[in-house]
Amino acid sequence: MNQKVAVFRKEHFNAAHRLFCADWSAEKNWEVFGPCSNPNYHGHNYELIVQVNGVPDPITGFVINTKDLTKIVDEEVKARFDHKNLNLDTEVFKNLNPTAENIAIVIYNLIRPRISESLDLKIRLYETERNFVDYPA
Amino acid sequence: MNQKVAVFRKEHFNAAHRLFCADWSAEKNWEVFGPCSNPNYHGHNYELIVQVNGVPDPITGFVINTKDLTKIVDEEVKARFDHKNLNLDTEVFKNLNPTAENIAIVIYNLIRPRISESLDLKIRLYETERNFVDYPA
Amino acid sequence: MNQKVAVFRKEHFNAAHRLFCADWSAEKNWEVFGPCSNPNYHGHNYELIVQVNGVPDPITGFVINTKDLTKIVDEEVKARFDHKNLNLDTEVFKNLNPTAENIAIVIYNLIRPRISESLDLKIRLYETERNFVDYPA
Amino acid sequence: MNQKVAVFRKEHFNAAHRLFCADWSAEKNWEVFGPCSNPNYHGHNYELIVQVNGVPDPITGFVINTKDLTKIVDEEVKARFDHKNLNLDTEVFKNLNPTAENIAIVIYNLIRPRISESLDLKIRLYETERNFVDYPA
Amino acid sequence: MNQKVAVFRKEHFNAAHRLFCADWSAEKNWEVFGPCSNPNYHGHNYELIVQVNGVPDPITGFVINTKDLTKIVDEEVKARFDHKNLNLDTEVFKNLNPTAENIAIVIYNLIRPRISESLDLKIRLYETERNFVDYPA
Amino acid sequence: MNQKVAVFRKEHFNAAHRLFCADWSAEKNWEVFGPCSNPNYHGHNYELIVQVNGVPDPITGFVINTKDLTKIVDEEVKARFDHKNLNLDTEVFKNLNPTAENIAIVIYNLIRPRISESLDLKIRLYETERNFVDYPA
Repeated sequence: MNQKVAVFRKEHFNAAHRLFCADWSAEKNWEVFGPCSNPNYHGHNYELIVQVNGVPDPITGFVINTKDLTKIVDEEVKARFDHKNLNLDTEVFKNLNPTAENIAIVIYNLIRPRISESLDLKIRLYETERNFVDYPA
Repeated sequence: MNQKVAVFRKEHFNAAHRLFCADWSAEKNWEVFGPCSNPNYHGHNYELIVQVNGVPDPITGFVINTKDLTKIVDEEVKARFDHKNLNLDTEVFKNLNPTAENIAIVIYNLIRPRISESLDLKIRLYETERNFVDYPA
Repeated sequence: MNQKVAVFRKEHFNAAHRLFCADWSAEKNWEVFGPCSNPNYHGHNYELIVQVNGVPDPITGFVINTKDLTKIVDEEVKARFDHKNLNLDTEVFKNLNPTAENIAIVIYNLIRPRISESLDLKIRLYETERNFVDYPA
Repeated sequence: MNQKVAVFRKEHFNAAHRLFCADWSAEKNWEVFGPCSNPNYHGHNYELIVQVNGVPDPITGFVINTKDLTKIVDEEVKARFDHKNLNLDTEVFKNLNPTAENIAIVIYNLIRPRISESLDLKIRLYETERNFVDYPA
Repeated sequence: MNQKVAVFRKEHFNAAHRLFCADWSAEKNWEVFGPCSNPNYHGHNYELIVQVNGVPDPITGFVINTKDLTKIVDEEVKARFDHKNLNLDTEVFKNLNPTAENIAIVIYNLIRPRISESLDLKIRLYETERNFVDYPA
Repeated sequence: MNQKVAVFRKEHFNAAHRLFCADWSAEKNWEVFGPCSNPNYHGHNYELIVQVNGVPDPITGFVINTKDLTKIVDEEVKARFDHKNLNLDTEVFKNLNPTAENIAIVIYNLIRPRISESLDLKIRLYETERNFVDYPA
């Protein structure tokens, strides 16, 4: 049987963003992205759930110490994105549309190198209570 | 690595239903279904989460435009089931017990043809905060 | 200063109901109540919060033992309304529209005689997560 | 006894904003508002609960038809603030700091004239799950 | 009209506790407190909502800077109670039953001197999602 | 296609616990477990979600009758752990650190023999709203 346990840690950050394609007209952007294309931005309370799968240490009973996981999220995610404008204040979304899908992939790629290779990583990101994504699926 | 992202959209509808087997006595129905077999029906606030897995479009950053997904749920699910009596007002549950399991399968089958074959589909249905199902498992 | 503490206990029940006025046409009922007037009923997961205000007992530290409060709610509310059709299965809503407002008033009147006169009572009823009422206001 | 019932309707909108005082230095703004003063804005999923207190109509059982209340919120609040930058896209917050306190007061003043004088009005606004306000207190 | 705004800040702490009366037999304690009287303690995730009512500052738009409020809760509440055994690790509950009612009163009395006299204070404490209290009522 | 449906039932229990390694110094325990190593224990509201995957019965429409599942959880989990001190009141955690990971594995092993072999079992355990685990991953 699969002996791995999945450990989840929920964090959050607040950010402004705008969805649009620079090559498209305002009309085309509105047609595809609706009010999310508003030129002056809107924003969200992003809820982030970081999932790490592994075999618990026989002594501590931990897959990963959540204290360490929280530190990684603080340094890689919150320091970059919390209380920021994703389009203006970050390098990564200067030329990448900050959809929930893309933000989740970016967060995965930021955290992956900080986690032991023996552990699996998965990201869930809530843009709103009703819209959320998982990466990888 | 798996490049797919899972996109989730949460919707809701309210409906009345009754669980029972027409071939059984009232006693047998009570034994199996308890108060859920009440002949005059009871009801729920159903919370529906539609999950679609796929590779994000490189330009929009979307797996699927949630505007389109919401439209499909409106037409296939809410128009049929919202503010309805599942046993009396729908064809599909005239001879199929409207358990959460069966409602999820029915919703899957209604939405599946409306989604591109390149995308995977999964349904989560909350009957109450404490009872819910996934299909496929 | 006000020395009273408010104690809250959350319970729930599921029921079917229909909003309509027997003296009105189907069109008038639809105009006022919309899909809530569906003749075959729909339903809800009702969340009930019973609030009791009083001075804590100096020995137990309780305003009221929630074990006793739960028993009262079981006997007066859940036995009457849980897994029932409010319009068909109850006397009180045979001639009273089962809006959230009226259900809260009815529940207040059922519980009030069971609680000591030295305690204040207030009812909150969630019909859905987005629609709820307090009585008294 | 108070015969009034309080009716609550929960709505939401997403917006970008920035807290700052134009007369202050960036240092002073950071000292008071912290990362909320970020010049490029950040954002929130605002949850709005509109509370209306009154005596239920004896025929409908409604204090107010939530269909009407939702229309008022759509026209007065969501049309103005949803998917907007509060500082840049609205007149009212051009010279008023868009704190949760001030947004709640503004929303109260927008809705108050649309509600019958016989009804009381109260606004609850969640900026995040952990920060929220009521107006009037 | 009442010009005051209520500001709410939600915090949490985890603690062990036991409800019992030292003068009573184990039987009497079980009769009144049930499993909450377990001699080896049990525990809760306490959710604390601190409410402060006042008139917003005309420049900042704040009733109180939540940064300051969080600091007060950290120092007065979390430093004392978080990850503690309320009966064993605190002075105040050595001879006071740590019911939700009494914990809320204690927290009120700890925070009250730290808040300006021009502001009103109210405490909500969730012992579980289904059991909570307000002080003052 | 996978014809299985996953059925979820959410239950809860409250317990005290302490994380520590008996072979380690207090300093080492603090370094690894932080305030969770407090010698007098702290506690949590544990939320447990039991997931059972299988093909719904063609007559009842049930994968498993949640009435039966609730009974199993009552007997195997709540009777053992609810309102208990996991370290002191249970055999299984006398020499096993009661981390969320280990509690989930223990609950899985208690429930697994009570469920038909044709059904799959998975446990989700919330220690807090922000820390939770799945087993198997």
